[in-house]
Amino acid sequence: MEKWKEFLVTLCAAAAIGIVSIIFVLRWVLHYKEGLAWDGGLAEFNWHPVLIVIGFIILQGLAIIVYRLPWTWQCSKLIMKFIHAGLNLVAFILAVIAMVAVFDFHNTAKIPNMYSLHSWLGLAAVILYCLQLVLGVGMYLIPITPVSWRAAFMPFHVYSGLFLFTSVIAVALMGITEKLIFGLSNPKYKDSPPEATFVNVLGLLLVVFGALILWIATRKSWKRPSDQILHTLHTDGGGEDNSKVGPALSELSAGADAETCGDVRRRSNKLDDQED
Amino acid sequence: MEKWKEFLVTLCAAAAIGIVSIIFVLRWVLHYKEGLAWDGGLAEFNWHPVLIVIGFIILQGLAIIVYRLPWTWQCSKLIMKFIHAGLNLVAFILAVIAMVAVFDFHNTAKIPNMYSLHSWLGLAAVILYCLQLVLGVGMYLIPITPVSWRAAFMPFHVYSGLFLFTSVIAVALMGITEKLIFGLSNPKYKDSPPEATFVNVLGLLLVVFGALILWIATRKSWKRPSDQILHTLHTDGGGEDNSKVGPALSELSAGADAETCGDVRRRSNKLDDQED
Repeated sequence: MEKWKEFLVTLCAAAAIGIVSIIFVLRWVLHYKEGLAWDGGLAEFNWHPVLIVIGFIILQGLAIIVYRLPWTWQCSKLIMKFIHAGLNLVAFILAVIAMVAVFDFHNTAKIPNMYSLHSWLGLAAVILYCLQLVLGVGMYLIPITPVSWRAAFMPFHVYSGLFLFTSVIAVALMGITEKLIFGLSNPKYKDSPPEATFVNVLGLLLVVFGALILWIATRKSWKRPSDQILHTLHTDGGGEDNSKVGPALSELSAGADAETCGDVRRRSNKLDDQED
Repeated sequence: MEKWKEFLVTLCAAAAIGIVSIIFVLRWVLHYKEGLAWDGGLAEFNWHPVLIVIGFIILQGLAIIVYRLPWTWQCSKLIMKFIHAGLNLVAFILAVIAMVAVFDFHNTAKIPNMYSLHSWLGLAAVILYCLQLVLGVGMYLIPITPVSWRAAFMPFHVYSGLFLFTSVIAVALMGITEKLIFGLSNPKYKDSPPEATFVNVLGLLLVVFGALILWIATRKSWKRPSDQILHTLHTDGGGEDNSKVGPALSELSAGADAETCGDVRRRSNKLDDQED
């Protein structure tokens, strides 16, 4: 792998910031706010930021870069696809529970649902994330899907994955803004009490986490070796028109999917359907 | 160009949504709010969303995709670089005026500055955008900069450009959230008055505009033909390690920069320093 040290430093930075973000969101709700409970009150609302940060941001970020981890390159692409899909599924479930917590809290407190831009974009992100998950499983985990379809759909799968991840962070920043305005009364947000500064820093951490994940995900030289070969093939074949590589893929992908851990060296000249 | 119709449809959609966004933000401040003035009051504040949407979002978006417009491919890369830098400079100036409007309004109304996550991220975006502009001019418009430096810096220039553009939209969404909470009192934001719904739609339009610009910017087959050749060279040469293409570039870039409009056909086998 090229620039191994750079990759490792970036990965460790992302991991560290991810862990610190989780500590920050937990400290926010446990120290500054009402703690965690499932009682229809503010402590139930607090599950919302906790599950969004842990699930919809950190786990989704991990799911995005899971193919980039060099120590997974000796595992079959199929196993990695299941891990990728599994992490995204857990992230989706946690996002849904996070949404239920807010609806439950709103209904108990007689606060209207779905009035804010945060709620519009948040619901849209959850729905599109579900669609992305269903299409991803249909395209890349159901064996009968034609390989040419897989290749043709890949640019959309990658783009919408990264776009949804970015959108979720943007929506979280809007949520933080809302919560600090509504949740701080004496002193108010504008008086910069310690909680406000602390949670602003959480927002900054989420942005830096997002930036690192997007950097890792978009470095071509950090891809799985087989996907790098495929990328070259794509580019030589005329850019994004992945259908052109269909025939090459159809000859090779079945074998690649059937491999088990340890087969990576034997596989170095094969191509699979460029999951990442 | 591959998929010409798809490109044109995407571009027209982005242009249409950009124009509608400008109409929306103008209608917001002129119809729902206090109009526009430079008097230290709310009408001065209103320059903030107007200039951010027109300058920091729409103009920046145009600056990002200006190399993708096929009818500019007959112009020299140098002219296009000046247009790219010029649009970004205008966007930066409008963003600074937008910030001054807010500081002026806050100071007059005795509202603290720089307490919110929106203000932290917004100021960071303006500072980093300025840095990006200075580094971009230093790298790609000053003739003495070594071509190997230009190539090595390009992945960072492209990544940070797209990341800043995305961040600015996220910050704008936070700003919309703040303004709707603070600016609506009777009825409140949670009561969904027409202004709230109208401005939420503006937020959605900005997200879709961003999605379309990012899609156009990240399609390899929509690049200037010379940059597509360079992309293949990068990939074959080992992914992101652009320094490897330095020697090839140094032979070709001077000629490419010196060309004038109409030279594109003669230039089809040359490479320049992949501005986009």
